[in-house]
Amino acid sequence: MSSVEEETLQRFLDAAARGDVNHVTTLLSQVPLIINQRGTNGWNALMMAARNGQYDVVEELLKHGCDKFSVNSSSQTAHDIAKFWGHRHICNLLGGANDVCQRVLPGVDQTPQENYFSRETLERLSEKRTDKSWMEDKERDPRTVYLLFNNLSPMVGVSQRDQGERVETKLCRLKYEDVKNLLNKPTTVLIFLGVEKRKNPLSSSTSSQKEGTSCELPAWFAVGSDEDAGELLKCCSDKCCFLKKDHRELLKLSEDDAGVVAQARSVLAWHSRYSWCPTCGSGTRVEEGGYKRSCLNSECRSQQGVHNTCYPRVDPVVIMLVIHPGGNQCLLGRKKIFPAGMFSCLAGFVEAGECVEEAVRREVEEESGVKVGPVHYVSSQPWPLPSSLMIGCLAVAMTTSITVDENEIEDAQWFPRQQVMDSLLRGDRSKLSLPPRQTIAHQLIKHWINMTSNL
Amino acid sequence: MSSVEEETLQRFLDAAARGDVNHVTTLLSQVPLIINQRGTNGWNALMMAARNGQYDVVEELLKHGCDKFSVNSSSQTAHDIAKFWGHRHICNLLGGANDVCQRVLPGVDQTPQENYFSRETLERLSEKRTDKSWMEDKERDPRTVYLLFNNLSPMVGVSQRDQGERVETKLCRLKYEDVKNLLNKPTTVLIFLGVEKRKNPLSSSTSSQKEGTSCELPAWFAVGSDEDAGELLKCCSDKCCFLKKDHRELLKLSEDDAGVVAQARSVLAWHSRYSWCPTCGSGTRVEEGGYKRSCLNSECRSQQGVHNTCYPRVDPVVIMLVIHPGGNQCLLGRKKIFPAGMFSCLAGFVEAGECVEEAVRREVEEESGVKVGPVHYVSSQPWPLPSSLMIGCLAVAMTTSITVDENEIEDAQWFPRQQVMDSLLRGDRSKLSLPPRQTIAHQLIKHWINMTSNL
Ligand SMILES: [Zn+2]
Ligand SMILES: [Zn+2]
Repeated sequence: MSSVEEETLQRFLDAAARGDVNHVTTLLSQVPLIINQRGTNGWNALMMAARNGQYDVVEELLKHGCDKFSVNSSSQTAHDIAKFWGHRHICNLLGGANDVCQRVLPGVDQTPQENYFSRETLERLSEKRTDKSWMEDKERDPRTVYLLFNNLSPMVGVSQRDQGERVETKLCRLKYEDVKNLLNKPTTVLIFLGVEKRKNPLSSSTSSQKEGTSCELPAWFAVGSDEDAGELLKCCSDKCCFLKKDHRELLKLSEDDAGVVAQARSVLAWHSRYSWCPTCGSGTRVEEGGYKRSCLNSECRSQQGVHNTCYPRVDPVVIMLVIHPGGNQCLLGRKKIFPAGMFSCLAGFVEAGECVEEAVRREVEEESGVKVGPVHYVSSQPWPLPSSLMIGCLAVAMTTSITVDENEIEDAQWFPRQQVMDSLLRGDRSKLSLPPRQTIAHQLIKHWINMTSNL
Repeated sequence: MSSVEEETLQRFLDAAARGDVNHVTTLLSQVPLIINQRGTNGWNALMMAARNGQYDVVEELLKHGCDKFSVNSSSQTAHDIAKFWGHRHICNLLGGANDVCQRVLPGVDQTPQENYFSRETLERLSEKRTDKSWMEDKERDPRTVYLLFNNLSPMVGVSQRDQGERVETKLCRLKYEDVKNLLNKPTTVLIFLGVEKRKNPLSSSTSSQKEGTSCELPAWFAVGSDEDAGELLKCCSDKCCFLKKDHRELLKLSEDDAGVVAQARSVLAWHSRYSWCPTCGSGTRVEEGGYKRSCLNSECRSQQGVHNTCYPRVDPVVIMLVIHPGGNQCLLGRKKIFPAGMFSCLAGFVEAGECVEEAVRREVEEESGVKVGPVHYVSSQPWPLPSSLMIGCLAVAMTTSITVDENEIEDAQWFPRQQVMDSLLRGDRSKLSLPPRQTIAHQLIKHWINMTSNL
């Protein structure tokens, strides 16, 4: 590059940085190739404009076809830079996650779906679980939030407007002072849930900055106790109660609270069932912020290497909506325990040595006799009863005749699309009632209706 | 063609047209070649059935291998005819799985991927696990195949050509006579793996026909024993040995054998670690063909209702290839235990209360500091070391600077697409070596290279 060219480039970059659209346009018309050139610091005009919040320049450069995906020497795109400096307008202009995804994974449908129990409002900070002194400081921190569980039921506020149907149940947030006596009891189980998430999740902080921020944010813990419920309720000065054992009660929590309960209840359920070492039958002690139980027998095989016996159990389950080869019907089944008239997706545990797709095929054939061909993953959902990972799929039937396995389900039928739509969208439950929106079954059915609505 | 033959053909075509599956089947068994013969109008049985919307006949003819691509005098295939007459069902049947999928789930990319350890050559027949007398008959059946494991290592044949690199290891298939003494020992664990799959997996048999076929096919069992390996080897008259403990040895099995080992080894590993009741510390007994352990203590809580403590454990793991927002680099990491120069996808266990997508985001950020946006499921793989379900995803990075968590991995870097291709396709391991093709990590990397190869 000649010194003249260098000088022109420098003028171009300066114009972009200070927002001089006219000058940028003029130089572009004279030297079109300048558009993607980088200066001595490795930044191009788009990056300079993005850094300095020059919306009009960014727009102009995009109009001229600049490469918005090129990166500087720190591997940052202009989008990264705009995001870091808080220029949201420019981020939107440069395209967010979906545009990047479209570019990076062409042809992949990216409609992110968030299921109930899936929202993560806390950062788990799992690396802190082994940091005893940090954990003890957090336990005593007056900003720390404690959630109390009695026999796996969370303590919730008693709503004044329980009559209305749409009232959300709220978790009681307790303080260290409320629970400190309870924490000293040997049967109490304490789980570190994480710290509250930072406001700007995409700030590209370095690790040391992260230490300086995340770790200082308020921590959340779950406290599990099987003591008398009446005694435990005294921890809270507000009017509150423990949620009834009915599973449907859990579905009344807000999306935020549901996500926290999914985590807390799953881990507490594991403690309640796995307090003895399955490898040798000895007692165990709780470690690592409630995410580990170690055998007390020093001779035990579980002491050598990493063993899943020591960690919370998560059971993968496949749940699938099977579509008739004709395209206009889906296969739904019902269990005896379902409310009258309700049908849902078929589902079953993934067995040892099976992949997701084979588990879908086996379960559908076992329960209904229908053979399944292609299987298509849609989304997933944690289900804390006690601790499953629901893997939601659509599947295409290759045969149509139904033979119900009455040990597993009571009935299975092909339902016409229209009937499913009537129930799902118009609330017409005269012929068919579907599971509530908080379930992945409901979301799978909705996904199918939506994806084929233009047929 | 004799007049008798002509008359038979006419009856055959008539039966196809009116939907008489039994008559069609009978005539086919008498005169197999009749299947593709045409009547005086130039139409074969498939076309007649397609014209008249006879779904079951079309299905039956396809099962018998009719030529679905032959055309009538107007150059119409049976598919064309069904389409013209509006029989969508039959169109889909004639279109094959991919066509059906394209029609039923429009816009969904359906490139089925089969990973190592994922092939199912056996039908698990889980409903038979509780049928004690059926199981005992199968155990003694001389056609039954037994696979023997010593401390989780399968017994394999000693190959004569061990020098060559590409020699496949074969599992030893034993008979009842070989193992019957071993089965009587109290420490032996017996797992019912299933029966051999029928040749035509899409035959639309009814349940009673199924009883008449699947259950009579040869059964397979896995036998786990921790006795002296030398003693156990005497069960087999051929030259054989137990596979070395090295994980890579398992990857030398054929795809068929690998699928069976995935199932057997996962369940045996569970027995070896979970022989005591984790809820109360009592002993347990094996039930249901090796898929259940019940507590011997009648007071135990695990006796009431269904408890996951009694069933084999499968640990869901996310494994992901993270793509740079620029699209031309991917994030790979290495653990200390990897061979020199090898990098692979990041991975980690799904935690309690987490969905797949959140687990991907958390693990990537914990291990590398990189923030991830969209997550796209690709395929899954059982991994029997000891019993994981690997959930393979592509993920798009939203930030690019790397901060390695040295407790988890040794290094993580962005690798240019070209360098990955050189290693993957040209075997150039000078700068980068990747995990072998049997791993889902390898398949994820290949998937990314393939899906973006037209950029
Ligand atoms: Zn132990
Ligand atoms: Zn017990």
